[in-house]
Amino acid sequence: MITTGGTISSVPTSEGLAPSEDNTMVQNVLMNFHGQYDISVRDLMHLDSSNMQPEEWQLIARCIAETHVDYDGIVLTHGTDTMAYTASALSYMLLNLPIPVVLTGSQLPLNHPFTDGVDNLRCALAMAASGRPGVYVAFNRKIILGVRAVKVRTTGFDAFESVNAPYAAYLDASGLNINRYALPSLSGLFSPSFDLCDQVALVKLIPGFNPQFFDLLSKINCRAVVVEAFGAGGLHFIRRNLVDRLSAMLERGMCVVVCSQCLYEKSDFSIYQSGQKALQQGVIEGLDMTSEAAVTKLMWALGQTQDPERVRRMFQTNYANEITL
Amino acid sequence: MITTGGTISSVPTSEGLAPSEDNTMVQNVLMNFHGQYDISVRDLMHLDSSNMQPEEWQLIARCIAETHVDYDGIVLTHGTDTMAYTASALSYMLLNLPIPVVLTGSQLPLNHPFTDGVDNLRCALAMAASGRPGVYVAFNRKIILGVRAVKVRTTGFDAFESVNAPYAAYLDASGLNINRYALPSLSGLFSPSFDLCDQVALVKLIPGFNPQFFDLLSKINCRAVVVEAFGAGGLHFIRRNLVDRLSAMLERGMCVVVCSQCLYEKSDFSIYQSGQKALQQGVIEGLDMTSEAAVTKLMWALGQTQDPERVRRMFQTNYANEITL
Repeated sequence: MITTGGTISSVPTSEGLAPSEDNTMVQNVLMNFHGQYDISVRDLMHLDSSNMQPEEWQLIARCIAETHVDYDGIVLTHGTDTMAYTASALSYMLLNLPIPVVLTGSQLPLNHPFTDGVDNLRCALAMAASGRPGVYVAFNRKIILGVRAVKVRTTGFDAFESVNAPYAAYLDASGLNINRYALPSLSGLFSPSFDLCDQVALVKLIPGFNPQFFDLLSKINCRAVVVEAFGAGGLHFIRRNLVDRLSAMLERGMCVVVCSQCLYEKSDFSIYQSGQKALQQGVIEGLDMTSEAAVTKLMWALGQTQDPERVRRMFQTNYANEITL
Repeated sequence: MITTGGTISSVPTSEGLAPSEDNTMVQNVLMNFHGQYDISVRDLMHLDSSNMQPEEWQLIARCIAETHVDYDGIVLTHGTDTMAYTASALSYMLLNLPIPVVLTGSQLPLNHPFTDGVDNLRCALAMAASGRPGVYVAFNRKIILGVRAVKVRTTGFDAFESVNAPYAAYLDASGLNINRYALPSLSGLFSPSFDLCDQVALVKLIPGFNPQFFDLLSKINCRAVVVEAFGAGGLHFIRRNLVDRLSAMLERGMCVVVCSQCLYEKSDFSIYQSGQKALQQGVIEGLDMTSEAAVTKLMWALGQTQDPERVRRMFQTNYANEITL
């Protein structure tokens, strides 16, 4: 078990809940599982997950890559706010890791009388012990593929949804019920890649969106952008022509991915006139990827190559069941 | 009935589906309701709703304000992609309109054999005939408050969710079942306001978000921003200090609203350290408003006043049940 902070290990302070500097609470809970699992705990960092950024993903990925040979599975405790981003990033960085990595956390601290943390740890441990390779999020008795998790509730215990993919598993009195068709399969030898590019932006459109906004992205050296468009991939082109601005970004050598701001189901530019215009300009379709999976995939792809055409091919390749092809 | 285009009245073209220039399809369907309702149709525009922008909201609002005295209720056909934004904007612009305005559309055109459009029109007509004031979205046999609607599915017939509020009504064999506790109440005389400010931005954070991005907003004369933060309202402040940049925007006289990127439940900055830091800077909490309701509320408030303090007060006032106080 690798701990990184988050609500699960938070304690009240004068400025609100903040991650504790020790993992006594986690250690106490693990006593419950004594004799069932052989667990060692590594205290990696103590962060509210709003502060988790690509640099932390690199620390976590390196820690897992360096130590995985000694373990059957790894549980990573993490704040819920950016857990879906971390899970997606690790899915690409730790491609073909032969053991499971299961992220979990909670909506209330372990020392709160109503905590969901103990149940979530229980579920994560079960999945980690399953030996099934892949990066997962364990929450509210369900196991979600890391690349398919999205946090949809700010306080509800059922905080995560499995978007556009079935649950990888669920826990009930019959045990851990694994949906083998949902799991990613190993495609080669484990070869971690730690390089990430942070010059990636996410832009969610609104009606009346100022097209100049896109021009500014190159001023802050942005190399790629994921656009959350309307519906299946629409953008306005009358008065405020967003389609032209996407072309301008492409001409500057940027990678432009367009996906949907709808939570569920896939973008498809071929349906409507406004989407077809975008596709003709050379934008990459986000297909049914979550925004979290798309943004981290671009960061990872741009960490491996400078070539926009290779980034496009990597983006369109399915690595961890993040796309339904 | 006011028609504006959208999939419901679209026909196949060489560039994909595009809104038809006449409303023959809608007229044909309305023959089914002959004798039940007395309907007149006004063809206002023929747009894919990805092209709907504040200028179109103004045309629609003016059309409704000018003609409402002759009708018991108004159905507005509209593309689904930005229907939630239009419904929210109209809720503020047409405050205290004494009759219902019901937006509807469909995921497949009326002339498609699998169309959901006829059922949606049926539902919208029932709500329009109910005489209950308010702006609503009618979809898949459910009526959602305009300010609470979010499009969550790109192709599913159950395309809209009522976010953080119960359905206003649903249709079944017993008729139109209205949830009277969910409906907005009139708070005064109808006094429409058509002025909107389009210098509003929406920013959805990602881990590693470049703080310089916020500085660029003033370069394009942005007057207000809605930030979709992590979880209940978290922002990173180590290495890339977003909290400081929010302060800088506030000092420039901009209005800064922070809400959650989680679809459901409310933001609450008071829980965590990182949120409290933001609150101390003077940002406005998005509470449990949808991003669609928050963005359009800012556009509307800034259309009425230049004073940031008055915008803050207006933003925190509940007008159409867009906030649970």
